[in-house]
Amino acid sequence: MNLAQILFVPRAVALFGASGDATKNTARPQRYLAKHGYGGKIAPINPSRPEVFGLKSFRSLKEVPFAIDHAFIMVEDVERALEDCGAKGIPLASVFSDGFADAGGEGLARQERLVSRAKAFGVRLLGPNSMGMINLTGRVALSVNAVLEADVLPAGSTSIVSQSGTMLGTVLSRGAARGLGFSKLLSVGNEADLGVGELVELLVADPETHTILLFLETVRDAAQLAAAARAAHAAGKPVVAYKLGRSKLGARLARSHTGALAGEDRALEAYFRDCGILRVDLLETLIEIGPLLAGHRPRDRGVAPGRAPRVAVVTNTGGGAASVVDRLGMAGIETVAPGSGAPIVDLTMGRKGLSYGAVLGEMLYFPDCDAVLAVVGSSSHSYPERAMEPILAAARSRTRPLGVFLTPQADHALELLAQAGIAGFRTPEACADAFRAYLSWRAPRAGSEARPLDWPQGVPAQGKLDELQAMTLLASLGVPVVEAAVARAPDYTHDLPYPVALKILSPDIAHKSEVGGVVLGIVSREAFAGKARSLAAKGEPLLVQRMAAGLGEAIIGYRDDPVVGPLVMVGAGGILAELYDDVALGLAPVNEAEAREMIGQVKGFAAMRGYRGLPQGDLDALARALAALSRLSLLAGRPVREAEANPVIVQRAGVVAVDALVILKEA
Amino acid sequence: MNLAQILFVPRAVALFGASGDATKNTARPQRYLAKHGYGGKIAPINPSRPEVFGLKSFRSLKEVPFAIDHAFIMVEDVERALEDCGAKGIPLASVFSDGFADAGGEGLARQERLVSRAKAFGVRLLGPNSMGMINLTGRVALSVNAVLEADVLPAGSTSIVSQSGTMLGTVLSRGAARGLGFSKLLSVGNEADLGVGELVELLVADPETHTILLFLETVRDAAQLAAAARAAHAAGKPVVAYKLGRSKLGARLARSHTGALAGEDRALEAYFRDCGILRVDLLETLIEIGPLLAGHRPRDRGVAPGRAPRVAVVTNTGGGAASVVDRLGMAGIETVAPGSGAPIVDLTMGRKGLSYGAVLGEMLYFPDCDAVLAVVGSSSHSYPERAMEPILAAARSRTRPLGVFLTPQADHALELLAQAGIAGFRTPEACADAFRAYLSWRAPRAGSEARPLDWPQGVPAQGKLDELQAMTLLASLGVPVVEAAVARAPDYTHDLPYPVALKILSPDIAHKSEVGGVVLGIVSREAFAGKARSLAAKGEPLLVQRMAAGLGEAIIGYRDDPVVGPLVMVGAGGILAELYDDVALGLAPVNEAEAREMIGQVKGFAAMRGYRGLPQGDLDALARALAALSRLSLLAGRPVREAEANPVIVQRAGVVAVDALVILKEA
Repeated sequence: MNLAQILFVPRAVALFGASGDATKNTARPQRYLAKHGYGGKIAPINPSRPEVFGLKSFRSLKEVPFAIDHAFIMVEDVERALEDCGAKGIPLASVFSDGFADAGGEGLARQERLVSRAKAFGVRLLGPNSMGMINLTGRVALSVNAVLEADVLPAGSTSIVSQSGTMLGTVLSRGAARGLGFSKLLSVGNEADLGVGELVELLVADPETHTILLFLETVRDAAQLAAAARAAHAAGKPVVAYKLGRSKLGARLARSHTGALAGEDRALEAYFRDCGILRVDLLETLIEIGPLLAGHRPRDRGVAPGRAPRVAVVTNTGGGAASVVDRLGMAGIETVAPGSGAPIVDLTMGRKGLSYGAVLGEMLYFPDCDAVLAVVGSSSHSYPERAMEPILAAARSRTRPLGVFLTPQADHALELLAQAGIAGFRTPEACADAFRAYLSWRAPRAGSEARPLDWPQGVPAQGKLDELQAMTLLASLGVPVVEAAVARAPDYTHDLPYPVALKILSPDIAHKSEVGGVVLGIVSREAFAGKARSLAAKGEPLLVQRMAAGLGEAIIGYRDDPVVGPLVMVGAGGILAELYDDVALGLAPVNEAEAREMIGQVKGFAAMRGYRGLPQGDLDALARALAALSRLSLLAGRPVREAEANPVIVQRAGVVAVDALVILKEA
Repeated sequence: MNLAQILFVPRAVALFGASGDATKNTARPQRYLAKHGYGGKIAPINPSRPEVFGLKSFRSLKEVPFAIDHAFIMVEDVERALEDCGAKGIPLASVFSDGFADAGGEGLARQERLVSRAKAFGVRLLGPNSMGMINLTGRVALSVNAVLEADVLPAGSTSIVSQSGTMLGTVLSRGAARGLGFSKLLSVGNEADLGVGELVELLVADPETHTILLFLETVRDAAQLAAAARAAHAAGKPVVAYKLGRSKLGARLARSHTGALAGEDRALEAYFRDCGILRVDLLETLIEIGPLLAGHRPRDRGVAPGRAPRVAVVTNTGGGAASVVDRLGMAGIETVAPGSGAPIVDLTMGRKGLSYGAVLGEMLYFPDCDAVLAVVGSSSHSYPERAMEPILAAARSRTRPLGVFLTPQADHALELLAQAGIAGFRTPEACADAFRAYLSWRAPRAGSEARPLDWPQGVPAQGKLDELQAMTLLASLGVPVVEAAVARAPDYTHDLPYPVALKILSPDIAHKSEVGGVVLGIVSREAFAGKARSLAAKGEPLLVQRMAAGLGEAIIGYRDDPVVGPLVMVGAGGILAELYDDVALGLAPVNEAEAREMIGQVKGFAAMRGYRGLPQGDLDALARALAALSRLSLLAGRPVREAEANPVIVQRAGVVAVDALVILKEA
C-alpha cells in the first residue's frame, strides 16, 4: 500500500486512547467509523477495559493480533505510542493530542523531538493537533470532529486540506445542507511531518478528487505546495485557498494559534496567484465555488487585451441581480446582455416576453463573455423545481462557467443545482467573489529553469555590503545604476562631471539621508571640496555619483521571504508606496513581461503613463530593471536576504538606480 | 384612521384585477391575505367573474357595498382605478402595476400624470411598481411576493422598507429559516408619492417596530429620510441600510432599474453616517444585525480618544474565531481577552479548564471593551441545545452588545439564539460587518439651526463667476484667499509685491492652466510686463496674485448634490486625491471639529502630520477653511451648485486658497 492508501483507505486502524465513556471526545472516532460505514478492522487501545462499545479492547498495541495500516493517537504520551507503532510496523499515525508547536516555546521543542523520534521509528505523522481524516467516498471517518454525528454526509469529488480541524465540520455541514458532497477532508494540525503541500500531491493523484480546497492560517511548505499546485494544474484540478491573517490582528492570532509565521498577506497573495491557486475572500465561497470551476482552466494571462473580464447576466429580480452585479463592478468585472446595450437581461423589465431558459441558453454560447450568471428570486423558494427547471435544461450542454444566485432561502433549489453539478450561491457576495476568483485565476508561472548565476567578483558574499558593493551586485544582474566613483582622503579627487551627489561610503549606515550622510546637487569642484571635508569628518571614503534627473521615481525591492521564498516588489517612489500600500509583488524571478504586468498594477505610475498629458516615463526600462533585480533569486545559494533600489529615477528613455541597499543572509 | 393604520391594518381592502386563475400573480394577494389570517373584508374587483375563489367579485369599485381603507391595484389602467378610489373616498392605494418611471422616458411622464391625478382624487400612493405591504404582527399580507406561499412566517419587531420588491421575500425567507421574525415589510416601488423617508416616519411611530431596515438602490428624498432618521434616533430605534450602486456598474444598473440617479456612493456613505443610519456592506448583515443593536445607542463621536474600538472574544474553535477576528482587524477593530495579553480567549488552547459560560459572563461586564463576540464550532451543529445553553444563560442580564458566530451549518442553534433575542451570524463576514457597522455607528448630526447667510455684495448671484468673484464669495464666508488684484489693459499696473502669478480673468475659462492661461512665479516688474502682454493677447483683464509657498497642498470642495444635498469634500492636493480617491466627504455645513475629523480621514495629509519627521502643516487652519466653505449651504436659496478651492496652500501657520472656482445653479 502506498501512503495515499494508508491514509485514505486503511484496512485496519488502531485507536490509542479510545474511551469507553460516550461523552468523551476520545470515544468519537470509534463511534464515527462505525456510523459512517467503515469496513476495515478497528483496534481500540485502552488498558483499563476489556472492551469498548462492543469491540475487544487491547491493553497495548503489541497485543493486537492483526496488521494495522493507520494509527489514531489520542493519548498524552504520544512518543510512547509512536514507538509502539514503529515496533509493529505501522507506517502512519494521525495525532490528535496537542500541546506541541500549538502551545508555544516548550511545545515546539517537544514537537521537534517527536518528529525525530517518528522518523527513527519509520512512522509518518499527520498532526500533532490534528482532528484526523474523513474519507466520505471511501467511508472512513477517522476523526473526532462532531460533524460526524450527522447520519448522512453526502460524498462528492471535492477534497479539502485544512489547518483548522473545526473547519472540516464547517465545510461538511454547510455543504451537506445544500447537497454539496466531499471526498477527503484532512486536518493537518501542526504539520510536523505531513504538510499541506504533500497532502495536495496525494489529492492530485487521487482519482476521486477533482477539486482541492485549502483552509489556511499560514503556509509552512511554500516550495512543496507550489510544486503540488503545478501538478494540480497539469492534472486539470483547481486548487482554491481561503487564507486567514489578512489583517495584522489576524496574523497575530494565526501565529499564536499555529506557532508559525502567518506571512505577510500581500506576499501570500502574490504566491497564490503565481502558483495558479485561486484565492477566495469569503468563507462560503470556498464551499460553493467548486462546480463553477469544474472542467474549466485558468484564463490566459493578459486575456483579451484591452477589455475587462465579462459576465453575461440574466435575472427575474432586478434588486437581486444588482446585489451581485454591484460587487462584480467593484472587482472591475463588466456585465453584458447579448445583443443589447443593457448591462443585464432583466426579465421583469421590458423583456417580459422572453423565457428564462431561452435567454440563459443563448448566453451559455455567447462568444463575447467569459462566464454566465443566473439570478432567481422568490420562486426559487416557493416553487424550486419549476424555478430551477429552465436552468438545469439550459446548463446541460454548457461549455462556459455558470453560477446561480438565489435571493431567498432556497435550500431545495440549491440541492437541485448541486445534484446537477451547477454552482449555486447563497449570498450575492460569495457569488461575486467566486466569479472574481475565477476571472483572475491564472495558470501557474513556470518554475524557473534558469541556471544558477555566479556571484560577481569583488563583492563579498557575507557580512555587510556598502552602497558601492550593493550597486556593483545589482549592476552585475543588469540593473542600470548611476555612474559613481569613490573619493578618498585627503584630496577626494574624482573624474565624474558635475553636478554630483556625495554620500558617506559605509556598510554600517543603511539610511544615510536620515543621519545627514548625503549631499545632493553639488554643482562644481569648488563646492565639492568643502562638502567632502565636512561630510567625511573622520576621513571616511566618500561615494560620488552623478546627479540623475527624470520624470519620476520608483522603488524596486527583493526579499527572500521566510514564508513564500524570493519575491520582488515595485512601487511608485516618494511616500506613495508606503502611504497607500501602492506596490505590486511577484514571485522571483520574473521576466520582463511579468514585470510589466506588475508595474501595470501600481496606481502611482499613472503620472508616468501620460496621465493628464504629463510626459511618459520609460516603464519598459523599469520592467527590465525589475526583472534584473529579481535574478537575485538565481544566485547560487541565494545569499541575499533583502535588496532595494530606492529611488530608481525613471527617465524618458531608460531608468537609473541612484541608491541601493543589499542585506546578506550571513551578515 | 391615520395613514399608518390605513397602510398597515386596513379594515377592508379592494383588489383591482384580482384574478380567478390561480397560476397568475394577480391571484396571489387574495390567497395570501386568507392564508396569513387577514381578518378584514376583501373586495376582489374583476368584471369578468361573479366570484373569485369563493369571494363575491365586483364589476367595479362603486358596487362594493362597504367602506374600503386600502386599494391594491394590479390592472393596466391605473388612473381609472385611482379615479374610482377617489370617488369612493379610499385614502390609499398600493399600485403593483408597472411601466412608469421604471420604464424610462415616456413612463416617467405617465408617472407624473398619475401622481397629479392621485393628488386631485385625494388618494395617497404606494408605488407604482410596488409589491405591496406585509404586516406579520397584524396579519395583513397585501402583496404578490411568492414568499407568502410559506405556511408560517415568524413575526418580530423588525420592519423593512425596500426599493426592491423581491428583497422582501429574501429577508423574510432567510429570517424565517433562522427564527428571525419581522413586523412590517414595505415595497416602495417607484416612490411616486409615499417615499422611504415618510414610511420610516410611520415606522418610528409604530409601537410594534423596534428596528428599521432599508434596502436601497438610491435615495429619492434625502431631506425627509434624514429627518426620519433623527426621529428614529430620538425614539431609540436603529435604522440600518444596505445600499446598492457602490460600483459604477452597480450605479448604472440601479439607474436603469429605478429610473432615478443612484447617487455617488461616497456621498451616500457620508449621508448615512451623518444621519445616524448604520450602513452594512453585506446583504445578510441586514437580516442578522437587528438583535446586536437592540437596546443600544450609537457610541459617542470620537469614542475613547486614542484607542480603537474593542471587541472581547471567546471561542471554542481557533480557526472559526480567526475567520471573524481577521476581518475585524481589517476594519481597524481590536480584540481583547480580559485579564490577559492574548487577543482572544481560545478555550481549546491553554485555557481548557475554563467554562465557556463563565468566560462569556465575565466579558459581558468587562469595562474595557465595546462589544462581545462568542464563537462556537461543530457542537452548535451536533448538540445545539447544549452548545447554546451557556450563551443563553450568560446573556440574560447583559448590558453590552453580544454577537455569536456559529462555524457549521447550525439552523437550530441560530433559532435558539433568535428566540432569546441574541444576534447569531451565519458567516464570519456578516458577523464582522455587523460589529464594524455597530462600532462606527454615530448619532445623527444635529440639523443646522444657523440662520441663512446673505449673499455678498458685488458678486452676481447668477450667471458665470470669474475667479475674482469666486474668491470674493469664499472669502466672505471665511476662507482665507490669496491677496490679489486686477490688472487691466493697456498698462496692467498693480500694487502687489513680487513674486506674483498671473491669470486670464474670465468666467468662461474654468481650467486656465490647461489652456496656457496661467503664468506662475513672475519675479519682477520687468518680467511681468512681457508676460502680461503675451497672456492677454486680446487685451483681457488679468488677475494678479501673490505667490504663496507652503508645506503642501490641499483641495477643498462643495457640491449641492442632487441626491443627498449639500456636501463638502477635502483631499490632499496634486494628483493624490484623484489617483487614490483619497478624499473625505461630509454633509454641509460642518463645524470646525467635524472638519478636523474629516481631515483626519485623508491619508495623503500624513506628510503634513509630521510623518518621517517632516515639518507639520496647519491642518487646524485647513479645518477652519473647510468649515467656512461648507457655509455655502447656508446662503439663502442655496444658489451655488459647486465650488472648489484647489490648491489650498497649507503653511506652518495658516492656509491660503490660490485658485477658486464657483458654479452657480442659474448659470
